[in-house]
Formats: sequence, structure tokens, C-alpha cells
Amino acid sequence: MPPKVYITRRFHFSASHRIYNPAWDEVKNLEVFGKCSHPTGHGHNYELEVTVAGPVQPDTGYVMDLTRLRSSIEAAVIELLDHRNLNTDVPFLKGQIPSSENLIVALWAQIQPLLPEGVELVRLRLWETPRNSFEYYGETV
Amino acid sequence: MPPKVYITRRFHFSASHRIYNPAWDEVKNLEVFGKCSHPTGHGHNYELEVTVAGPVQPDTGYVMDLTRLRSSIEAAVIELLDHRNLNTDVPFLKGQIPSSENLIVALWAQIQPLLPEGVELVRLRLWETPRNSFEYYGETV
Amino acid sequence: MPPKVYITRRFHFSASHRIYNPAWDEVKNLEVFGKCSHPTGHGHNYELEVTVAGPVQPDTGYVMDLTRLRSSIEAAVIELLDHRNLNTDVPFLKGQIPSSENLIVALWAQIQPLLPEGVELVRLRLWETPRNSFEYYGETV
Amino acid sequence: MPPKVYITRRFHFSASHRIYNPAWDEVKNLEVFGKCSHPTGHGHNYELEVTVAGPVQPDTGYVMDLTRLRSSIEAAVIELLDHRNLNTDVPFLKGQIPSSENLIVALWAQIQPLLPEGVELVRLRLWETPRNSFEYYGETV
Amino acid sequence: MPPKVYITRRFHFSASHRIYNPAWDEVKNLEVFGKCSHPTGHGHNYELEVTVAGPVQPDTGYVMDLTRLRSSIEAAVIELLDHRNLNTDVPFLKGQIPSSENLIVALWAQIQPLLPEGVELVRLRLWETPRNSFEYYGETV
Amino acid sequence: MPPKVYITRRFHFSASHRIYNPAWDEVKNLEVFGKCSHPTGHGHNYELEVTVAGPVQPDTGYVMDLTRLRSSIEAAVIELLDHRNLNTDVPFLKGQIPSSENLIVALWAQIQPLLPEGVELVRLRLWETPRNSFEYYGETV
Repeated sequence: MPPKVYITRRFHFSASHRIYNPAWDEVKNLEVFGKCSHPTGHGHNYELEVTVAGPVQPDTGYVMDLTRLRSSIEAAVIELLDHRNLNTDVPFLKGQIPSSENLIVALWAQIQPLLPEGVELVRLRLWETPRNSFEYYGETV
Repeated sequence: MPPKVYITRRFHFSASHRIYNPAWDEVKNLEVFGKCSHPTGHGHNYELEVTVAGPVQPDTGYVMDLTRLRSSIEAAVIELLDHRNLNTDVPFLKGQIPSSENLIVALWAQIQPLLPEGVELVRLRLWETPRNSFEYYGETV
Repeated sequence: MPPKVYITRRFHFSASHRIYNPAWDEVKNLEVFGKCSHPTGHGHNYELEVTVAGPVQPDTGYVMDLTRLRSSIEAAVIELLDHRNLNTDVPFLKGQIPSSENLIVALWAQIQPLLPEGVELVRLRLWETPRNSFEYYGETV
Repeated sequence: MPPKVYITRRFHFSASHRIYNPAWDEVKNLEVFGKCSHPTGHGHNYELEVTVAGPVQPDTGYVMDLTRLRSSIEAAVIELLDHRNLNTDVPFLKGQIPSSENLIVALWAQIQPLLPEGVELVRLRLWETPRNSFEYYGETV
Repeated sequence: MPPKVYITRRFHFSASHRIYNPAWDEVKNLEVFGKCSHPTGHGHNYELEVTVAGPVQPDTGYVMDLTRLRSSIEAAVIELLDHRNLNTDVPFLKGQIPSSENLIVALWAQIQPLLPEGVELVRLRLWETPRNSFEYYGETV
Repeated sequence: MPPKVYITRRFHFSASHRIYNPAWDEVKNLEVFGKCSHPTGHGHNYELEVTVAGPVQPDTGYVMDLTRLRSSIEAAVIELLDHRNLNTDVPFLKGQIPSSENLIVALWAQIQPLLPEGVELVRLRLWETPRNSFEYYGETV
């Protein structure tokens, strides 16, 4: 039986957002979210780590071609996020508070269909800053 | 069922220590621990990564407020470690060899009570240097 | 004569901006600035390195107290930038295109008056992303 | 029961390789592997993270001596890889395509016998570049 | 007079090389260059930092468009180096020992003609590993 | 005339220290130096960057052999600092407050005699933490 290896590619995008629940007024938003809810927004350099796993293919020594993984995720996902406003510009975040938690769960649904058969999506890790990160493994509570 | 997301915050502290077992004489300590047991001690810039997990809250898009996680851990834990001597100054390390292994297990007990209900402590990772790190998941052997 | 030492402190802030010249119409702005001019803006995690220099003081071994340098710059500068929109929220950028070049020149004027006598501001370095940075030494062409 | 702690040491080596399947002709190799198959090869600064786990020893506060882990892996593994060509020079890669997947699986077999009793090899992580990494946990599919 | 600002862009390429002086025999090469002269070569992930300087343009707030700087250097320089062998594949290194010193001096001549009028090349910095780097300012001794 | 290239090597050491002026009493020391003067000391992972410059040698393509630079500085300097207490253990710091400013000036005098003829010491940069650094160019005020 072939060994199972996990491969990870890091992506980068710069975006702005404002944490804001439209069901609440400004006062409650500022009370709950603090400076993250300033009306004119703020932004981050996000780093996204995508980890997939599968058997090593004997004829290539690859789980899958990382260049193909990279270009398909850049075209289908990163292009929609980079230099954009997460509150207004991103189709797959419409109607959601653009927290990193909601973003990473939405990214799972975007990235999973891009993988070839036999390769599974295992982990997403998103850095909002070099000191804050978020992971999602496709689990529910 | 809501998605389960893992959130991680990195902390920094600078401390000194000496690896030393008081049940042994100096010769045996130096034999076992080498330069880590020099009598006048040495020190490190420690990086601590705290990972907690829980359901994404629909009204905030957060697992929990990271600013609150940060300030409670800084006040209750980092303040006791930063610019301190781990052999003599830290109440929750009293009577223990201040190795990174013992430190990370002691930190688990300090951090767990600080979390809100429904949020679990999942992983601590401690870097002693950029090339050495230690993880603890609350397990026993 | 005492040795001259340069000391550097790194600061972090997250902000949003849009590169946009109000003297031009939308078409020209997008033509010149590309994705940096998307109307809803984008953002970055900025890293700012402040370098000052002066003689080493014989009674402290310090050029100046780095903790004091840090807290004065955080209060007077970083507080005005962090989690803010550089186009609309920052008093010392009013009327300017919020490029990193204009930001770093404006920061020089904000930081210089905060230094104690005998300590000179030597260099500012601003990272917009981990791959793009900007330096200013107080020079004109 | 003693706590189980995971300890990780990072290693560095610089090597060259060419991704190439000798069962295929040049045209097919370039078609499948692209620039990774240029005949004269290319190279990387690899970073290898070795994670082992075991009970904390009460008399040392250590899972095992990290200095001993480091020197045994450097002597038995890193010495054979550093400043070498992975296609031609490394005994334990003979007859294999030197992809990072095959390299990490081969490293598992090299490193496991070096560990003391009671300490298990848990994870290898290999960075080919700062943006691409590979993990192996000893699993098969 | 407009302020003078320095802007820096980081580039990445992976290449192989062998340090070897063809005027010497194998014995002398190994004696002088050690493991850097292994006949089958080794490789690195190089990081190249290009710093240019000039006046801030009042209508853009830019010294020059960093996207344009990036794409011109990637097309004219990085494309020739990435996933290549520095001994055999790079036209502008022909006949030279591919040390980082010779590479950085050769890069200066390649990059300078790519800059727009009024923008000067100030500094190149090349990392061969995260611990070794080389700088060139266009000076002779 | 041969090109002048600057080469830099990074070193690492872990040490403890206490900022303390013996001419003052404890109260004044704590007032001036704050937590940096806690009696039992604290510590850091220091990173030291040594930059030297000289002409590129035509027969090697090197300014000087970086491996030789590395081993001479490790033997003569890093060995005296690593896993040591800067207040009590380091001969060339005797009688000095072990601030990073005094350390970097003392390191200049240690490192300069180690260089071969024709190679000059240009810059030392010392990181006390990832956010604080100190530079010395051999200047007086």
C-alpha cells in the first residue's frame, strides 16, 4: 500500500474588511467588536495554507502536481480575494460577517471541488496577522 | 450543526533558566544537561502558541473574541513569565525542573480555566528557539 | 568619545487604503493604479521599523530607553493608524494619496519630535507586505 | 501517568535535484514535470522538522535530550544530504524519483531507528521552499 | 524639493550550482571550496532584494510602479535563473564561477537598464540561505 | 578594479543578563531599568549579523571563505556567549553593564582581529528579540 503524504501550499492576499453585524446598531457593533468594527474598515495581509493528502503516485513521486494545485486555487479563489473588500466584493461571502472563521469555512467549500480524485482536502490555515491564525478541518461541533 | 474552527494566538516572553536537578550534585548535572546546566543560567525568547477550538457563533462570526483571549492570557500567565527567572520567580513552576516540557504542561493548567464555556483548549506549542519547539495536547502516556 | 549605536524597534499596524488621485476620473485611476485602486479598498498588515542613533550613555549602557521609545511612538503614531482607513481616518495623511511613500515621509515628521535630545532619527522602513518595503532617511532629491 | 509531550527539532540542508522518470523520454518528462525536469537540475534550501513524542522523564524534565536527537540525525541523515545531488549521491534514495514525497518517506525509515526506546517518531515536515511543504506520519492509504 | 524614498521588492528563485574553478584540478577545487565543490552540485532557494530610489511623484505618490518593477525583473532576470543550473544555463554567468558574489555583480548589470529614467539602482541583496547574504552597491575597491 | 561586495553571516546564541548599574542601589536600578533589572535576571535568543566587505577574488569568486568566517567567529566569540550569563561569565564584558549597546561595541573589538587582510568589518547587527535590534559601524559620536 502506498504511503500517504500531506502537501501544503501557502497563498497570499491583501484585503480589507469590517467586522459588523447588520442586525445590530453601530453602538452595539462597536461595543462587541471594538476597533475591528470602525466604519471605514481596516485590512490585512492574509496568508492561507492549503493542505491536501493522498497516496504517492509511483510514476511521478507526487501526490499531485503542486503547480496545478497552485494555479487552480489562485485562479478560482485568490483572484476573488486579493486587493478586495471582504464585506462587499466577494461572491462567496455575501451575507456573512467577514470574520476569519467565516472566511475559512467558506474557503473550504470553494477549494474542495478543485482537487483531483483521490486527493482529499485535510486542513486550511489562515493567518490574519503573524500572531493570529485560524484552522479548519471540515468538522462540525 | 455549526462548523468547528481552531483559533491560535502567539505570545512572546523572555526568561532565564538553568536545567538542574537538585537531587544530583553539580558533576552529574553538568554530565546530564551539559551547557544547559551552567550555574549562572542562560535565557531565551520564548514564543507560545495557544490553540483553542469551538463552534462559530452565528451573531459574531467568532469562536471567541481573540482580544479577550489575548488579554486574559497576558495578564494571568505572560506577566508571570516575562523578564523572569524560571527557576526562582514563577509560582506555578515551584519545585520543578524548568524544562520546556515541564513548562508547557504547567501552562496547560494555567490557561484552561481562562477559557469561556464551550471553548476547549486543544494545543500549546512553545518555541525555545526558532529551531526547537514543544507541543502538548493534554495527553498522558 | 563614546561609540555611536543605532537602535531599531519594530511596530505593527493593520490598515486599509485605496490608491486614488481625486484629480483623475475612475477610468484613469484604474488604468494607472490597477487593482490598488479598487473603489472599496483593500488592506495590509504594515510593519514599521524605526531606527534612531546616538552615543551610548555610560551610566545606563543605553542610547535611550527602548521601552520609552516604544510607548511614545505607539501612543502618538500607531494608535492613529491601527485598524484605520488611511484615506479617511488619519489626520496627518489628509489630502494625500495614501501610498507607502507618502505614509513614510509623513511618519518621519510625526516621529522626529518624539525623540529625546541627542538622539537622531536615522531611518524608517515600512513593509506593506513581506515582499515590498520602503525606506526613508529624511532626504530630498 | 506522566504527560505526553511532542518535541520538534528543525534541520537545514541544501541540495540539488531533477524530477525525472527514467522510464519516460525527455519529451514526456518535460511535459509532466515542467521546469522541475530541466536536464541540468536545480536546487533548494530544505528545512526538515522532526517531531518525536514520549513521556516526560521525572528526573530530567525531558522527553529526551534534544542535543542527542540533533547530533544523531545530523550525523546519520543530514550529512548524507547537505550540499549533495539527490539524484545521484544519496544511498537511501537510489532508484527513486527524488520528489519531496519520496524523500520524506525515505527519511522516516532513516530516522526511526535512531530514537531511544519509549520515544516514537510522530511527524516529519519538509519545506522545499518557504511556500511548499510536505508532511508524513508513517501512514499508508 | 521632493523627498527621496527607497523602494525594495523581494524575488525568489531556486537554482543549483557548483563552485569550481576550471583552471584548477579536482583536488585543488575540493581543497579550496570543500563541499561547495561536490561534482554533482547542490542548490539553494535564493531570495533577491532589489532596492531602487528616486523622488516621490506628486500625482501618484509613487517612486515608480512596483508592479511594473516586479514584472520587468521577473521577465528579464528571474525567468533565466529559476529552476536552472547556474554553471551551465544562465547566459550572463557564462565563463564565471557561480558564487553569490559573482552572481550579484552580474545581476546589477542586468537590472540597471530595466529602470525608468530618474530612478537609480541602489542596492542588491541576495540570500543564499536564511543565514548567508550578499550585498552589492555598484562599488569597486 | 574589482567589485566590492558585502557578505553577511548570521549567528545565534542564548544568554541571560540583568541590566544593573552597581553604582546605584536596587531602588534606583528598578526605577531606571524596570523589569530588565529583576534581580534573578532574564534571557534572550540573540541573533548576531556580521557584515564584512572586500574585493571579489578572481580565482575563487569569493570575498572570503564564509565557512572560515563562520568557524573563526563561532570559536572565538559565540562559544563564550552561548548558554552563558552576560553579567558574570564573559571575559570581554567584565565591568560593563551587559546592555545590547555595550555588547555590540565589545563584539566589534573581538571580531575585527579575526578577519583576513583586505577584508574590513563593516557592520554588526544584534537582535535581542525579533522586534528590537542594534547596529554598530565602528563610529564614535
